[in-house]
Amino acid sequence: MTTIEVNASQSYQVQIGYEILDTLGQQVAALGKACKVCLISETTVWPLYGSDAEQSLQNAGFETCHFVFPAGEQSKNGQVFLEVLNFLAESKLSRTDVIVALGGGVVGDLAGFCAASYLRGIRFVQVPTTLLAAVDSSVGGKTAIDLPSGKNLAGAFCQPSLVLCDLTCLESLPEDIFLDGCAEIIKTAILFDPEMFEELMQDGPAFHRERVIARCVAHKRDIVNADEFDRGERQKLNLGHTIGHGVEAMSKFTLSHGKSVAIGTAIVARAAVKMGLCSWETGEKCQRLLTRFQLPIYTDFSAHDLCKMVLSDKKRSGGTVNLIIPQEIGECMIRPTPINEIESFIQAGL
Amino acid sequence: MTTIEVNASQSYQVQIGYEILDTLGQQVAALGKACKVCLISETTVWPLYGSDAEQSLQNAGFETCHFVFPAGEQSKNGQVFLEVLNFLAESKLSRTDVIVALGGGVVGDLAGFCAASYLRGIRFVQVPTTLLAAVDSSVGGKTAIDLPSGKNLAGAFCQPSLVLCDLTCLESLPEDIFLDGCAEIIKTAILFDPEMFEELMQDGPAFHRERVIARCVAHKRDIVNADEFDRGERQKLNLGHTIGHGVEAMSKFTLSHGKSVAIGTAIVARAAVKMGLCSWETGEKCQRLLTRFQLPIYTDFSAHDLCKMVLSDKKRSGGTVNLIIPQEIGECMIRPTPINEIESFIQAGL
Repeated sequence: MTTIEVNASQSYQVQIGYEILDTLGQQVAALGKACKVCLISETTVWPLYGSDAEQSLQNAGFETCHFVFPAGEQSKNGQVFLEVLNFLAESKLSRTDVIVALGGGVVGDLAGFCAASYLRGIRFVQVPTTLLAAVDSSVGGKTAIDLPSGKNLAGAFCQPSLVLCDLTCLESLPEDIFLDGCAEIIKTAILFDPEMFEELMQDGPAFHRERVIARCVAHKRDIVNADEFDRGERQKLNLGHTIGHGVEAMSKFTLSHGKSVAIGTAIVARAAVKMGLCSWETGEKCQRLLTRFQLPIYTDFSAHDLCKMVLSDKKRSGGTVNLIIPQEIGECMIRPTPINEIESFIQAGL
Repeated sequence: MTTIEVNASQSYQVQIGYEILDTLGQQVAALGKACKVCLISETTVWPLYGSDAEQSLQNAGFETCHFVFPAGEQSKNGQVFLEVLNFLAESKLSRTDVIVALGGGVVGDLAGFCAASYLRGIRFVQVPTTLLAAVDSSVGGKTAIDLPSGKNLAGAFCQPSLVLCDLTCLESLPEDIFLDGCAEIIKTAILFDPEMFEELMQDGPAFHRERVIARCVAHKRDIVNADEFDRGERQKLNLGHTIGHGVEAMSKFTLSHGKSVAIGTAIVARAAVKMGLCSWETGEKCQRLLTRFQLPIYTDFSAHDLCKMVLSDKKRSGGTVNLIIPQEIGECMIRPTPINEIESFIQAGL
């Protein structure tokens, strides 16, 4: 098992290992003061791991309750958010009680925002059951719901009290969901880690789970420690995401997040090459690694349509959008791009 | 005009004076970086001050939009919260834009929670138009909405960037709404300020507006600086509120917040006398000042019913409720009270 310490506004451990779900109860007990634990999960994950998680908590002496919502991104909305809050209130959770988010990014984002808001903040534990959640969304404290106008438009910065990543849960993931996580791993390699980039190129999807996940978490930890509230360096984690969200929205979310991010990353890489911001070799390497993981790198959507979606995305700051541009593997820059140049930038990378 | 500096996780000014609403635009401009301002208000306040506020912002060069919801506590709910968030997203407010909360506590609490949540937090300015909001809810960064199970059960700690309190707006308040504020002023005097207590006893409802409001804000500032996140000293501000919320809920909110808090304060004072926690003179003084302001000090609701409501309130911590007990004027204690002793405590003070 690997343990990584995060020291943001709240300090906590990320534990990564096989068959550690049954330690959940003891570990929540070690956080202290809680009496009740509310598990929040969704309909795909709950039948697989719900009773193990709940049993572990009950064995440690907790009173438990659970709220299970329909699986899928469309549940990450305001109505479900309010339903969960009402459920927490009806279950009479107090300020010292704990929420456990059992699932992928949708569960973690939604449950995290509920934990941040209920009684103006109670503690929560992330138990990621997808690769994406393990390497990305469960660490760093960004929680959110979607609004009708776009993804992740409301939420809170709220760090978990513990992240428990049981690698056993990741073994039976459907391919699409596995690839979503791979896209984030590749993003992390491009941003920070030439050595991991080479390892991924060599091993492909058979990469060493614990080592690679721990490395991604450590990179995320470093950037969250440096810029918890996303005002500077942390924006680099948006590599491929700004345009990727546009692709995802244009597909009406039929294309997965990971595939959309892969396309977004490839578009940025090609545009960067064309504009002389990075070498042809670097752009090519990015595309090659994405392809090595069976991730798509092209889209048929027009620059005009993608641009429209990008501009409804939240990552605007006044009249510019901060695009993240790879310069070489392990080195990226934040480039404030005027709104009226976004379409031609995308066009350059299509 | 009086200016009070608050140095919480975010530093800001509280400005208190007559006819300062028309400086709103310049002052928001001085915060920097904003392009758009969204005013949030309700149907009673907006016709009175909306156009002045909006005009001032437009004169300072801002693009403005506004969201006006039906007046009343019943609007401080999850649905209106989501409607405002959607409105902000549709109006394409960016991270550097600003929300102005124009109204009383309901507007400030709701708009503040929207500001805390939209894009995971944008800046907001409080323009309190009631005495309660001026002395209490606009300062200190507690934002909230009500849930079906109870008041203020979801929200965020989120400090405003500026509080602009135009005393002119307070002059035409209906009596009930004026008294709501008086109850909080009396609470502040009992908690921290024997001198102001005497001044209020002498002057009654004709108290010097600017001096007393500024003094209340300064006390609130001190306690927020000491305990922004309500884990210790700040809980003292709940004097009269824990049981007062029970009274308010039992009346199905037909009794105003201020009157409910007045009754809650009187119940606690009488119970404290009976239990030997404060002198008879102190308890009597509390009741006398409340009465001096035409605030009620008795209720017909039973201890059993009030207790049930108190226990559904959020201020529980595991098996105890922290009750705030006056010991003498200017000196109160936090007393963790086991849940099963609450009913007899209330009974002692009825």
